[in-house]
Order: sequence, then C-alpha cells, then structure tokens
Amino acid sequence: MLLSILALGALQIPPGLDLWSEGDVEARLERDRAICQSVTPDHLREWHDLIASRPHAAGSEGDAQVIAAIAGAFDTMGLDVEVHRFTAYLSRPVSASLRLMAPSEVELPLTEVALPGSTYSELEEDLLRLGWNAYSGSGAAEGEVVYANHGRKEDFEKLAELGVDCESKIVLARYGGNFRGYKAKFAEEAGAAGLIIFTDPKDSGYGRGLETPEGGWANCDQIQRGSLKTLPWSGDPLTPGIEATEDAARLDPEDVALPRIPVQPVGWQAAAQIMAPMEGASVPKDWQGGMPFRYRLEGGAGVRVRLEVQQERALVETANVLGTLRGTLSSETAPGIIVGAHHDAWVYGADDPTSGTIAMLETARAITAQVAASGRPPRRTVTFAAWGAEEHGIIGSCEWVEGNRQALIEGADLYVNLDAAASGLRLGVSASPSLTSLIHGAAAAVPQPGTAPVISALDAWRGEAADLPEPGFLGGGSDHVSFLALCSIPAASISARGAPGTAYHSLYDDLTWYRRVVGEDYESARLIARITAVAVDRASTAPILPIDLGKPARALSRAARELLEAEPELFGPAGLEGVIGRAEGQAVAAEELTGRLRAAARSGVLDDARCRLADELLRGLERAWLIESGLPGRPWYRNLYTAPDESSGYAAWPLPGLQKAAVDGDKRVAREQVEHLGAVLQRRSGCLGALRVLIETSTER
Amino acid sequence: MLLSILALGALQIPPGLDLWSEGDVEARLERDRAICQSVTPDHLREWHDLIASRPHAAGSEGDAQVIAAIAGAFDTMGLDVEVHRFTAYLSRPVSASLRLMAPSEVELPLTEVALPGSTYSELEEDLLRLGWNAYSGSGAAEGEVVYANHGRKEDFEKLAELGVDCESKIVLARYGGNFRGYKAKFAEEAGAAGLIIFTDPKDSGYGRGLETPEGGWANCDQIQRGSLKTLPWSGDPLTPGIEATEDAARLDPEDVALPRIPVQPVGWQAAAQIMAPMEGASVPKDWQGGMPFRYRLEGGAGVRVRLEVQQERALVETANVLGTLRGTLSSETAPGIIVGAHHDAWVYGADDPTSGTIAMLETARAITAQVAASGRPPRRTVTFAAWGAEEHGIIGSCEWVEGNRQALIEGADLYVNLDAAASGLRLGVSASPSLTSLIHGAAAAVPQPGTAPVISALDAWRGEAADLPEPGFLGGGSDHVSFLALCSIPAASISARGAPGTAYHSLYDDLTWYRRVVGEDYESARLIARITAVAVDRASTAPILPIDLGKPARALSRAARELLEAEPELFGPAGLEGVIGRAEGQAVAAEELTGRLRAAARSGVLDDARCRLADELLRGLERAWLIESGLPGRPWYRNLYTAPDESSGYAAWPLPGLQKAAVDGDKRVAREQVEHLGAVLQRRSGCLGALRVLIETSTER
Repeated sequence: MLLSILALGALQIPPGLDLWSEGDVEARLERDRAICQSVTPDHLREWHDLIASRPHAAGSEGDAQVIAAIAGAFDTMGLDVEVHRFTAYLSRPVSASLRLMAPSEVELPLTEVALPGSTYSELEEDLLRLGWNAYSGSGAAEGEVVYANHGRKEDFEKLAELGVDCESKIVLARYGGNFRGYKAKFAEEAGAAGLIIFTDPKDSGYGRGLETPEGGWANCDQIQRGSLKTLPWSGDPLTPGIEATEDAARLDPEDVALPRIPVQPVGWQAAAQIMAPMEGASVPKDWQGGMPFRYRLEGGAGVRVRLEVQQERALVETANVLGTLRGTLSSETAPGIIVGAHHDAWVYGADDPTSGTIAMLETARAITAQVAASGRPPRRTVTFAAWGAEEHGIIGSCEWVEGNRQALIEGADLYVNLDAAASGLRLGVSASPSLTSLIHGAAAAVPQPGTAPVISALDAWRGEAADLPEPGFLGGGSDHVSFLALCSIPAASISARGAPGTAYHSLYDDLTWYRRVVGEDYESARLIARITAVAVDRASTAPILPIDLGKPARALSRAARELLEAEPELFGPAGLEGVIGRAEGQAVAAEELTGRLRAAARSGVLDDARCRLADELLRGLERAWLIESGLPGRPWYRNLYTAPDESSGYAAWPLPGLQKAAVDGDKRVAREQVEHLGAVLQRRSGCLGALRVLIETSTER
Repeated sequence: MLLSILALGALQIPPGLDLWSEGDVEARLERDRAICQSVTPDHLREWHDLIASRPHAAGSEGDAQVIAAIAGAFDTMGLDVEVHRFTAYLSRPVSASLRLMAPSEVELPLTEVALPGSTYSELEEDLLRLGWNAYSGSGAAEGEVVYANHGRKEDFEKLAELGVDCESKIVLARYGGNFRGYKAKFAEEAGAAGLIIFTDPKDSGYGRGLETPEGGWANCDQIQRGSLKTLPWSGDPLTPGIEATEDAARLDPEDVALPRIPVQPVGWQAAAQIMAPMEGASVPKDWQGGMPFRYRLEGGAGVRVRLEVQQERALVETANVLGTLRGTLSSETAPGIIVGAHHDAWVYGADDPTSGTIAMLETARAITAQVAASGRPPRRTVTFAAWGAEEHGIIGSCEWVEGNRQALIEGADLYVNLDAAASGLRLGVSASPSLTSLIHGAAAAVPQPGTAPVISALDAWRGEAADLPEPGFLGGGSDHVSFLALCSIPAASISARGAPGTAYHSLYDDLTWYRRVVGEDYESARLIARITAVAVDRASTAPILPIDLGKPARALSRAARELLEAEPELFGPAGLEGVIGRAEGQAVAAEELTGRLRAAARSGVLDDARCRLADELLRGLERAWLIESGLPGRPWYRNLYTAPDESSGYAAWPLPGLQKAAVDGDKRVAREQVEHLGAVLQRRSGCLGALRVLIETSTER
C-alpha cells in the first residue's frame, strides 16, 4: 500500500492539462489521490459476487434480484434511490433444433457444455445453456446452404456478383465484421429461409490463443448470444420516442421490422459439420476462417440442413435503478453528471456487462464516501444508473431518456458509460470531443497498473506518441446512444481491455472465467473505477462545467473536410467549404475563450449564480447539435454531430446528415444538411458570445 | 491463329526502349513475331510428355533416360551435343519411420497417397512415395517435442528467450520463411535430437484454396521433399571449387558439415497427431498455423515421438546435357549466351523443374529453326544446358562452371535460368541490372496471354506503375548461382507463376496435376519460351552485346546508400560515401556512353573486329565485380555485387562484403570491403574508357 501511495504522489501533470479546479492545485491532486486510494480490489470483488453469481437476463427472476441488490447498495451509500420500472417488448427462447439432413443425418449441438468446477456446472436449466438470438423469427426452415462470410452488405453483394443465389437457402455467416442483426436483415433481404451464425475459431478461438477452460478463447462449444434488432430507433421496439410505461401507446408488432426468418447462433463444432461437406466453389481470399478445410460458397444439393427456432415475444416488466447525490449548484430536477452501466446479462455476464457495472458501483461508493468524509456535497448533482434490458437492444436507458428528455436537455451535464469495461489493462476511450481534457486529466491522475517505475494511465495510453491521445468516435452499441441521439449530452465510454480471451455473450462468461482469464486482482476494474471517480469528482466540484469549448468545432471541421474531399461534387456546390471556414474560425475564438473562462473559474471571481449561468450556456453549446426533425430517414436520431452508421451497426458516422447525403448521392439532402450545420455553428456562436459577456462582466466586478 | 498474328503486330515498343539491333527496326520486330509464332503449345506439351512422364531423381534410371532424351532432342535440332558427366556425393533414402509414443502409440504416415486416375497411381515403389530430405542424418531419436515455427534463426532465438530448451528434443518446424536446410542447421545447433518439417495448411493447403485432387493446394498427405545442404559453397559437397570428375581430389565426408540429426518432412495429417496433444504454453501471435487447435511451444512429458531415418550417401554419376549453336563472332571455345534449366526432379517434377526445362527446350527449338530457315548462324554462340542434380544442391551447373571457369570468364556473355518457370501468367524476373533493357525489350515484343485488347507482357508486368518494372535482385536457390558467384556473368531468372495451387517437391507434381491446375493450354510455358527466345535471338544477333552500362553503378550506389544509412558509424568512417559518389559519377558517364555505343552499332560503322573487342570490354565490365580471394568467410563466393545471405538461404545480399561487415559489426572488414568496391569501380572505369576510345576511333573511320 505504501508503494502505491508513493506511486500516486509521483505522477506528473502533463503540460497544458488544466485541472478545471478552483484554488490550490495541490489540494485537487491530494483529493484525486484520496479517491484513488478509496477504490479497492476487495470492494470490486464484493460487487462482482453480488451481481454476477447468478444468471440474470432481462426480465428474469435473477435480474429482479440484481435490481434489488443494486437498489440496496445505492441506499446504503446514502443516494436517493429510484427503481424506474418499464415494460418492454422482449423475446425469450422456447426451443431450437438444428439437424444436418444430408450428406448424413446428424443432430447438431445448440447448447454450451457445462464445464466441471465452474459455477454453471450446477446449471440444470437447458434454456440457460441454449444459444439463441433475441428477436429471431419462429418457425422451421430446411434447405441447401450458402456461406456468406460475415453477412455484411458487401458480402451479400459479392455473393450476387459471383452468381450465388440465397433464395430459400440456409445461410451461414460467421460472427464479426458487423452487428449480428444486420447479418439477419441482409440474409432475409437476400431471400434466405434461415440463418446460422457461428463463432469462427480464427477470429475468437484457437486462432487467437488457448481455449476455455485451459485458456480464455472460444472453444468448439462456445456460443455467442445476442439481439438481432436493427430498427431505425434504439430502445423498446414498440415505443419509439416515448417511454415504455405499462400503458404507453404501442406500435402493433406486425408493423415493426423484426426478423421473420429463424436465426440460430452455434459454436464452431456445429458449423464444421455443415461446412466441411460443402462442395461448391472456393471462397474469396478474405472469407476463409480457421476451421480445418477450405470454405465454400455453396453446399450444393448434397448438403441440407433443417433449422427450427421457437421464441416468444411478449411485454415484460423490468427496471433501471438510479441513485442520486444532489449537488448545490444543480436545479432540483437536474440529473447533472450521470454514470451508467447496465445490469442485465445474457447469462452470468461476469465480463459483459458486470466488469463495467462494478466499476460504476465502486465509483458511486468512492464518491459518496468522499462526500460523507468531507461533509460537503458536490456542486453538481451526480446520478448513478444501472440500466435494464440493454442486451435486447439498449432498452432501459432509452426508455428513461425518452421519459425524461426535457429534464435531461435542460439539466444533464455529461454521461459516462461503463459497459463490459474491465477485461485487461489497455485503456480505451471513446468520447464527445468536449470531454477530451476532462478524461486526459483523470487518466493523468491515475497510475497504470503493472508499471515500474509507475507511469500514469494517460502516459500508458499515449504510448510512444508525441501528442496526447484523442478519444475515439462514439457510435452506437451501448447505453450512451440515447443520451447522444435524443439529448446531445456529451458522453464518454471508458474501458480497459486486452485480456487473453473472450467469452462474449456465452454461458462461459462467469466469475470463474473472469478471475482466471482477466485476473483475481481486479486491477482492470480498479483502473476504470479510479479514472471514472476522479473524472466525476472533478466535474462535479469544478466551478464551471469542465468541457472543451473549441474541440467540437475542430472536430466538425475535420470530419467535414474529409467528406468534402471524398465527395467534392456533392458537397462543393452545397457550400460545405464555407461551413468549414466558419467552424475553424469558431474553434480559434472558442479556444481563446476557454482560457479566460478557466482563469475566471480558478480565480474565484464567479459567484454561484454566474457559475450556474455558465453551466447553462455550456450545456447549450452542446445542445446546438440537436435537430428536432431528426436525421434524414431516421427521425429518432436527432444529433447532427454523430450517429451509428446505417448498414453495419459497428461504425460511427461523424456528421451523419452529410454521410446520408453521400451514401444516397442526394444533392438536395446535401444542401439541406450543410445548412443545418451552419445553424449549429450559429447556435454555438450565440452561446459563446453569451459566455464572453459573462466573463467580461465578471472580471469587471 | 490470325487473331494471334494481328495481336503480335499490334504491340508497341515503349518509348526509350532500344532494340540493340542493327539496321531496320521493323525487320527486327518482324523477326520477333516469327519467333513468337514458332513457339507453340503443341511443342511444349510434347517436351513435357518426353521429360515428366517418369520419376527422374538425380542418379536414377529415369533421369538417365531423360538425359538421353534431351541429348537426342538437341541433336535433332542440329546443336553440338555434349553429355557432361560428373560424379557427385548424393544421398538417397533407405527407410524412415515416425511413431507417436505418447499420449498413445500411433505409427504416423511418411508417404504420399497415390491418387486414383493420376499417372503415379501405378507407382509401386514405396521409396518414390516416401517423403525425405536429402542429406538428413541417419539414426533414431526419441524424445519430447518442441515447435519452432519456421525454424529460422530468430525463431530459435525466440524459443531461447522464452526459456524453451531444445536439447535432446524432437523439433517440429513448418515449411516456409527460410531454406529448409537452415531449419536443420539451427535445430542441430540448438541441441535437437531430430527435426520434423511439416507443410502447414495455412501456408500451402486449405488456407489458400481447394486441395489436391479437387483443387491444386496441399492436402493432408502432401509432403515437400528437398535438400538440407547449407555449406558455404554451392555444388557437390566434396569438391568445392573444382569439377567433380570421377577422380577429383575430394574432401573427407567427415569434414563436411552435412546434417547429423535425422530430419523428416511430413504432411499436416502426421504433424497434427503430434501437435494436437501438446500441452505447453501458447505460441506467439505469428507462429499459429492453420491446423485446428492452438499451437504450443512444448509438448511436455505427455507427448513423445520416435523418429528413425536411414539414408545412404554415396558418389553417384549423372550428367549435364549441353547443346551448342556456334556463332560467327564468338571465339571457338566461348560458351556465349547460355540458357539453362535443370532436368532432375524429386519425383515427376512436372512443374519443378520441367515447366522451365520445356521452355528451355522450346527456346532451343525456335532458335535453331530460325537459323535453319534463314541459313544464317547467329553472331554469338548460344549454349543450351540441361543441368543435373540441381535438387540435391545445385550440383550439375556448379561442376560444369567450376570445370570451365576460365572459358566462361573469358567467353560467356550472359546466362538465363528457367527453373520451374511456368505455373501461371504473372511474369516475374530477377536479373543482374545490366540485363534490364534486354528483358524489357523481349517482354515488350511478346503478347500477354488472356488480354483483350492484347497488351504486351511488359505492360502486364508493369501494371499501373508509371515506370518500367525493375527486375528483382538475384539471390541463390538455382543454377544461376555459380555463373554469378564464380564468374560474374550477368544472369536472369525468368518465370510466370500464380496458378491456384502448389505441389512443390511432392509426388503430386505430375502431368495430371500440372494440366489440371496450371492448364492444358501451355500459355504459361509459351509466354516464358517466347520471352526467352526473343531475348536470346536479340542478344545473339545484335552487333554488340546488349547490356546496360550504367545500371550496375546505379545499383551499387543505391544499395550502398541503404547500408550507409543503416550503419552510419560502421560505413561512414570506412569511406563509403566516397564510393557512392564515384559510382554515381560513373553511372552518368556510362549512360551517355551507352547511347553512343548503340548508335554506332545501329549505324553499322563497327566492323566484326571492333564488335568482338566491344563485346570483350563489355564482358570485362561485368567481371569487374570478381574478387579472387572471395567474400569474407565464404571464399567460394567471388562476386562483390551479389550473394545469397548467410542465415536463411532465401534472401539475396546486395554488396555481400558490406553486408557481412554489418552483420558482424566489423570495422576492419567494412574498410577492406569499401576498398574492394572502389577497385570494382576502377576496373569498370578502365573498361568504359576503352569502350569510349573504341567508339571514337570507329566514328572517325
């Protein structure tokens, strides 16, 4: 412990990094060190036992227990607890079977084998061992087979180019390359009768390292569960835009484009038995995976399979759990700074999501302990959230945001998401550009585990690079989506990964696997909880909200420049060059203003009313990206800065209105969206002007 | 046929490419077209049947028949035939066995399965089906196993770094990454008791495409034979530097560093049975191959194998076959322009070597037919050579060169090697820089198969590049080695590859495989024979020898610059910068002189005596690279421009004296070798000066 304290003290603040704090820098650093010390492996391990010791899929009895446990924990910390119930349209498995009909009849395995010595070896419920994809169609399909690589848009286009017909076939696709829901969507659009998704050993198994249970990589039985939902909105399938209360006005399920064909995930042992006897043409170069035979495009008449999947879709009640610590500066209804992680898991979910959930809980414990010790509440309200039904399609967080949108737009400061956040020591951050220096500062205050002499997490993240690392671009895929898409709240997703293995969405993702593969020492989760806790403490106690004023305009200019260079004939006439010029000008002015704002905050010349007004203007700066009419073709998405892409679910689209114009080659949309970006700059410019007046009147005081 | 003639007529001469011919350009192009027309698929197929219909390893009865058949063919063409016999120290297999002893006792397959319908299905001789590595040690070894990736120097260094001890172990290494002899050398140096070399399916099997017999890639039985000899000289192991005549003074075999441990090549089916049960640590990232389990560094006590290899090493008589067409300008003993290919094969060798051998034979046939039709012999002697015992270690060509070194230094103009030269349509050329424009010109005169509208082989080779393609750097590995290393004769290796498969050194490399995988149409071999025939005809009929005067100095400067930048502290003080400067100056002067020399040749002002003198000076220019004391540590290699590298056998070393100094960090050697390069430039400068005088006195005539 002594070494650790010394190590914390030895960390240096990188030049140019502002602490955003009032008064004495050493006091701020001392407080960071205390928070870091407060976060311990023992606490993290206890949270892990509390949540990941039982299967707890959304809507299950196990998840109800987890919800109660989290509410109890929040209560013990002294937080105001709300269990926010919602009623979502979920699917659950009933039965499934997969049978090779030719060249010989063989029943293929669809369940994961319980491993001796693991907690799940006690499992008796077959449905927990069964691999399944939420929102699969129900029914039976029998036919010849086609292999479609990752089942991406371009893969199905390639099949068509090669003259391979998917009509009435059972398509096999390997995991990876896109969100699995798009595999089902494109297979269905290509006329497939059914889809089998397999985990390829090259991507996740022996191609990467030793297999479970000896190592951590996928063995031949391991199955990746997961949702297939790809609707043009996030959250509950039947209540886009509104909260999924018990009596909400719902869409007719018949009108919602959920998959109709049966879709079944399998381990590679089952896939090999179908694919080895295939007799068609050899696959293109990048389509070969790791099974011990050449992959083929088609099976021919000699290979037939029969797939039957039965699922139920029904309205199910589950809940988010919120714990609030009221700040002195925030209004009474303002959610302030929000830290969220989901609680539901496909089975045990020791890594996904719980390695993030425990970091959220430990952050809450460390922050509340700090407040209790000092007796001083933070300036800004801090809300901790454990979201429900994320795995089915990011449902709980979306429903809460939909139900509280106005309060969030007015009073949410920033959102930090921790989903499956701790499975290794390689820090990775995706974030809104305005949160960059807050995250840099927090990472600079936290030691990187396993370094001697100790360096900061920021230095480890930076590696050999000369510049500080830029966070990645936030796309979709977890609970930050609705905060960004519906409210334009600056958001960050923080994780540390790199452990030698993956049990993603498998039965095997339990405490035994996690502690064997990621480690018993909880160094990964401690790293994430420390960075999050320091960031939240700094953000909640700073005189003004610690967001970067200039970086968003810089990011707009950079992304727009790339699009203009890629599509000069589309965006040139639309006037994008002018918007880029204005953005660059605004960035320069905003950066200058940032310095003055921080100096004013540090000097203490801003009274509470001015701090409150400054925060409001800073929130307004971020809300400038909102467009109430939504993105072209996707009205649910209302953020002009970012959205998930339209056809893979994996990629993020910077400036999604322009991206859509480019994809469609639509000049009208291009002009319209360039105008919208001009309006964004105009709104930001108004907020910046007001901030300037605020500073000038303050310093004149 | 009409289309083809039109196509040939349509090819354009790229700007800047000189034809090196006397008189009318159109007459030269007409002659190129006639030669191209003369080369036909039917002839190539007949040559292929003649040579590759029987197993014909060096020293076998089958090879004796091939030698007689080639001598007969040369004779029929009207060439002066010499069957040049030599007595080499060869190895031959007696027996081999490989047994998995633990975890269970299993006899592992060491023979290739005869496939139904192929010519070799008639094979009854087990020794032909047996996979073996020439010059393996004889004896038995039993022990635990270690996997050493490709068995490269760096792989064994990595094992040592990871604490894996090879002492008394049976090492497994996969083919690829280096010459197989180095796998044995490094395994033996690491203390291994035996070595098993396997063909990995990722590198050569289903990882690449469909397997034999459906496709052309290695199946689980396929075994790569091949020599293990890695001596610091090429050719016969017992007669370095002298011809291996029957009564030559030979080294004692005990004094020659041939492998002592048993070494056995296997297909992946056998390797998998040993490697699947291994229980040690997982391999580093790039060491994983394509078999369906994670590769491990060690087997542990639970995996034991027993390997026994018995071979005989003995003096065996075999032969080269030479066919000579005398030229009017060459002296009586001058070999002139030499085109060589080896005739011995591990089994049938339809691709390796025979796809090159038939291109050599067809070149000879086309050239002699041209001479017969015109009644005019070439200016320069042309020698066609079918070399023996190449597969054991490039023996036949080396012995002939060693026995005729003085005549070659004085009277050889250039050497073209065709080894396994035709298995696809992707042209590849490695050559001495001085042959660049001869090869460019020949490739420009030959149509690329399968192009519409027809483009030249040069344009297909160039692809999208703005500049003409530079031939690659010639290393070791085939019969050009001794021409370069002992005589500094400019050399080229021409091939066209890219067919979907490999049966390299396997029983499966027979006519059935070749015609199924490479094609029935012989377009690949025709392409190579046409380019070679046009190059040989142009070179043998031109007024002066068509070699580039400036390119060698440019190549020296480029290679030296790279070495100087890599090792400034070694080569800076040694004065390499000065040599580079002189080389660049010489290149400029030589390029200017080239233009004047060609103009003089074209204009016809050079009489035969002057042409003969010019040729002599041009040969002298090339011989400037020779150093009679040899390279540091490798006295057999006497060429300062190029040599094979010292530790992989795959790479070529430009400026090998400097490379050696760099590898050893030896300042004395660096200084000495820089001085040698200065002397090379001095000698070249003398020849260039004499050529200038020759031109000036000619034009004054």
